Amino acid sequence: MLKAKSPQESSVETTVLMMPSDANPMGNVFGGVILKHVDLVAGIVAKRHVGHPNVVTATMDRMTFLKPVFIGNALVLSARINYVRRSSMEVEVTVESEDYDSGTKARTGTAFVTLVALDKRGKATEVPPLLLETAEDKKRFSEGEKRMQQRLREAGKL
Amino acid sequence: MLKAKSPQESSVETTVLMMPSDANPMGNVFGGVILKHVDLVAGIVAKRHVGHPNVVTATMDRMTFLKPVFIGNALVLSARINYVRRSSMEVEVTVESEDYDSGTKARTGTAFVTLVALDKRGKATEVPPLLLETAEDKKRFSEGEKRMQQRLREAGKL
Amino acid sequence: MLKAKSPQESSVETTVLMMPSDANPMGNVFGGVILKHVDLVAGIVAKRHVGHPNVVTATMDRMTFLKPVFIGNALVLSARINYVRRSSMEVEVTVESEDYDSGTKARTGTAFVTLVALDKRGKATEVPPLLLETAEDKKRFSEGEKRMQQRLREAGKL
Amino acid sequence: MLKAKSPQESSVETTVLMMPSDANPMGNVFGGVILKHVDLVAGIVAKRHVGHPNVVTATMDRMTFLKPVFIGNALVLSARINYVRRSSMEVEVTVESEDYDSGTKARTGTAFVTLVALDKRGKATEVPPLLLETAEDKKRFSEGEKRMQQRLREAGKL
Amino acid sequence: MLKAKSPQESSVETTVLMMPSDANPMGNVFGGVILKHVDLVAGIVAKRHVGHPNVVTATMDRMTFLKPVFIGNALVLSARINYVRRSSMEVEVTVESEDYDSGTKARTGTAFVTLVALDKRGKATEVPPLLLETAEDKKRFSEGEKRMQQRLREAGKL
Amino acid sequence: MLKAKSPQESSVETTVLMMPSDANPMGNVFGGVILKHVDLVAGIVAKRHVGHPNVVTATMDRMTFLKPVFIGNALVLSARINYVRRSSMEVEVTVESEDYDSGTKARTGTAFVTLVALDKRGKATEVPPLLLETAEDKKRFSEGEKRMQQRLREAGKL
Repeated sequence: MLKAKSPQESSVETTVLMMPSDANPMGNVFGGVILKHVDLVAGIVAKRHVGHPNVVTATMDRMTFLKPVFIGNALVLSARINYVRRSSMEVEVTVESEDYDSGTKARTGTAFVTLVALDKRGKATEVPPLLLETAEDKKRFSEGEKRMQQRLREAGKL
Repeated sequence: MLKAKSPQESSVETTVLMMPSDANPMGNVFGGVILKHVDLVAGIVAKRHVGHPNVVTATMDRMTFLKPVFIGNALVLSARINYVRRSSMEVEVTVESEDYDSGTKARTGTAFVTLVALDKRGKATEVPPLLLETAEDKKRFSEGEKRMQQRLREAGKL
Repeated sequence: MLKAKSPQESSVETTVLMMPSDANPMGNVFGGVILKHVDLVAGIVAKRHVGHPNVVTATMDRMTFLKPVFIGNALVLSARINYVRRSSMEVEVTVESEDYDSGTKARTGTAFVTLVALDKRGKATEVPPLLLETAEDKKRFSEGEKRMQQRLREAGKL
Repeated sequence: MLKAKSPQESSVETTVLMMPSDANPMGNVFGGVILKHVDLVAGIVAKRHVGHPNVVTATMDRMTFLKPVFIGNALVLSARINYVRRSSMEVEVTVESEDYDSGTKARTGTAFVTLVALDKRGKATEVPPLLLETAEDKKRFSEGEKRMQQRLREAGKL
Repeated sequence: MLKAKSPQESSVETTVLMMPSDANPMGNVFGGVILKHVDLVAGIVAKRHVGHPNVVTATMDRMTFLKPVFIGNALVLSARINYVRRSSMEVEVTVESEDYDSGTKARTGTAFVTLVALDKRGKATEVPPLLLETAEDKKRFSEGEKRMQQRLREAGKL
Repeated sequence: MLKAKSPQESSVETTVLMMPSDANPMGNVFGGVILKHVDLVAGIVAKRHVGHPNVVTATMDRMTFLKPVFIGNALVLSARINYVRRSSMEVEVTVESEDYDSGTKARTGTAFVTLVALDKRGKATEVPPLLLETAEDKKRFSEGEKRMQQRLREAGKL
């Protein structure tokens, strides 16, 4: 069996300046750019947890865009793994924006991304168990488990 | 009151060749690229329906990636509006991939995107009603209404 | 001999939102972006017709830019095959723009692109014949033939 | 009347390394990338000649792709103005590729681009006359004039 | 006088997955991509320190690329402010790469970037003093001062 | 021993129009874009000198940004090789900007880039000697030698 890892070992924070090339025609950051960065950072967490690069995104839960993000803002994405089961992982990505004109921060949204680890031939392969060290870790694991069951139920697989 | 429009008037099909610059390090199209195109095409449908460009993405429901998409495949996105209410619209985007090596098509996934129309000052503003001409149109509207209520319920707004 | 295909089987429509990153320094869409999309969509038609991905662009006839396209407009490209001969295909691409501020459409231009099918070693290889079902199909084929002969004549190959 | 300028004063040479992000799915440089660079460099020549940035591409004559260009090749584009008339300019762009694996150069093609100078309100405005200093300059001017007349004739404007 | 801020308040860590579109023709990440990310993250630190977005890069000291970075690696950039004087700031950016195939990390290099804060009319404007809380903070400040003097000396300004 | 080449045989001039997608949020060209083009053009010079594509950037000396560059300006980069030793080359890149609104040119900065030639297995390999034909060539070689020694000294390798 693979050696367990704590969520802290694979967590990632990344800060991305929103450039004019990220704008929609109204001059705000368009949603697709944010979703791209969410997917990228969730992938890094999963690669760190499994210890190899072969992971694919399986689902992204509903993402709600709470506030617009403007060009010149930084997008701050914090991502950590909540839950694993067999070859599947759930990664939670919190997205904030920093506005340097107003000196304010705003919550943009939270995304739950599930990813699957693959072996060299593209078949699903087991991932390391999660080492749950804190009460917070355990709470997140149990909530992640519920969301995973709901996903399976809604996909008609449970 | 704004003049009603049928879903057919604003529907969009777009076909995008997946290029090497859309690849993840394993050589497949990475999920964030697909999500970006889903958001873009949903935006075009919404702009067509409201008749002005000022719309923002509010939510994207869970997106499940059913099959990997490969570089050299075309992504075929079909988008149509299902449901409107006040300033909100639900757009359904079906994503397929075409593989020219094997001559096969595959369903990649379906996304439900909600968008909000804004006026010049950025305030939510009413959108044209949907003209429901066919039984299919009515079924989609009623299903869209249920999904919208679930979104509001889950966001604690209902 | 390869099985004939109708022009309808390979025709493509694609709709692309023009983003700030497509702008020239004056804020309009620059011509090179439009030419890039014309080439991409012509390639998709050709791949669909030949049933494999190995096609290269041989020529693009004179393209006249009839109207400027603005950021926030959608570019609507409709592409269909007119004419084939041995390994060569002529694809016609009509480009329109949709302006969501004014609610108007404008014709941007029409491009005739010729493409060549290659085999695995990069040698020109025969393409399926065109199934000409309608009077329109036949008229387009015959006009395409004339343009192809003019191209060969002007290139000193006829 | 505006002060005449020689073609030498506005000519441009530019060398662009072809990167993996310029590739089509077969790994060659796709035609649209080359057309984009042709349009960009023609624009620089025209801006230099008119002495202000407000120029738009009107037409690009048939471009023939003589040889494939590979990733890692440099594209060498040489552009000079041949002909002017009122608000119109014809710029000729020669495209070569340099292959550092084989140490060879190849001619990729030649493009004739016409551009129009605009004033601040977007109306066509006169451009400086061409100072024809050499026999070569005069020959190019006279050939450019013939091509311009053919363009007008084919567009039904002559 | 502006309120002092500690280097910790503005420090940034960012993690960027290197994609095929970041590759040079040999398949490694090309140096210019790394320099771009160094400049971007240094800008975020400076914006955070001054509390407004109007900062420009003045110099980047010699950057040595110690190890190649590969596609699929993550680039981990850690940036903090070392030294300020009037309108100038020195930001140190440490660049590491994470390889998920081998499970190893490597130091790519360290860059010292100086930036200048501007006011609304583009004139250099004072930045907040640095609050030096630790021995490490003081050591970095004093070393930054020496480098700044060397830059001025080499530029003939001291 | 490899055949000597003059610096003229590998020198490159390239002219790049700065587009909206090259802008920082204040609308100027951001430094990272300029550094990327410096690295690209230095790489072309080195590939031309060694006669194969396998070169990597080892260092970029301090780059000072003397003047801001604006969107719509052209960046004119002139690059030539000054010095070689074993597998190392020093390339000097002069960066100027052309402003078509004001009709002025400005010096943006000068960069010294060192690059190393590699063989097929990624090991450093000898480069052709420099043919020093003019007094200028010899002066640049001797100054390049001094800078190379300083780099080695500062890196603790001398």
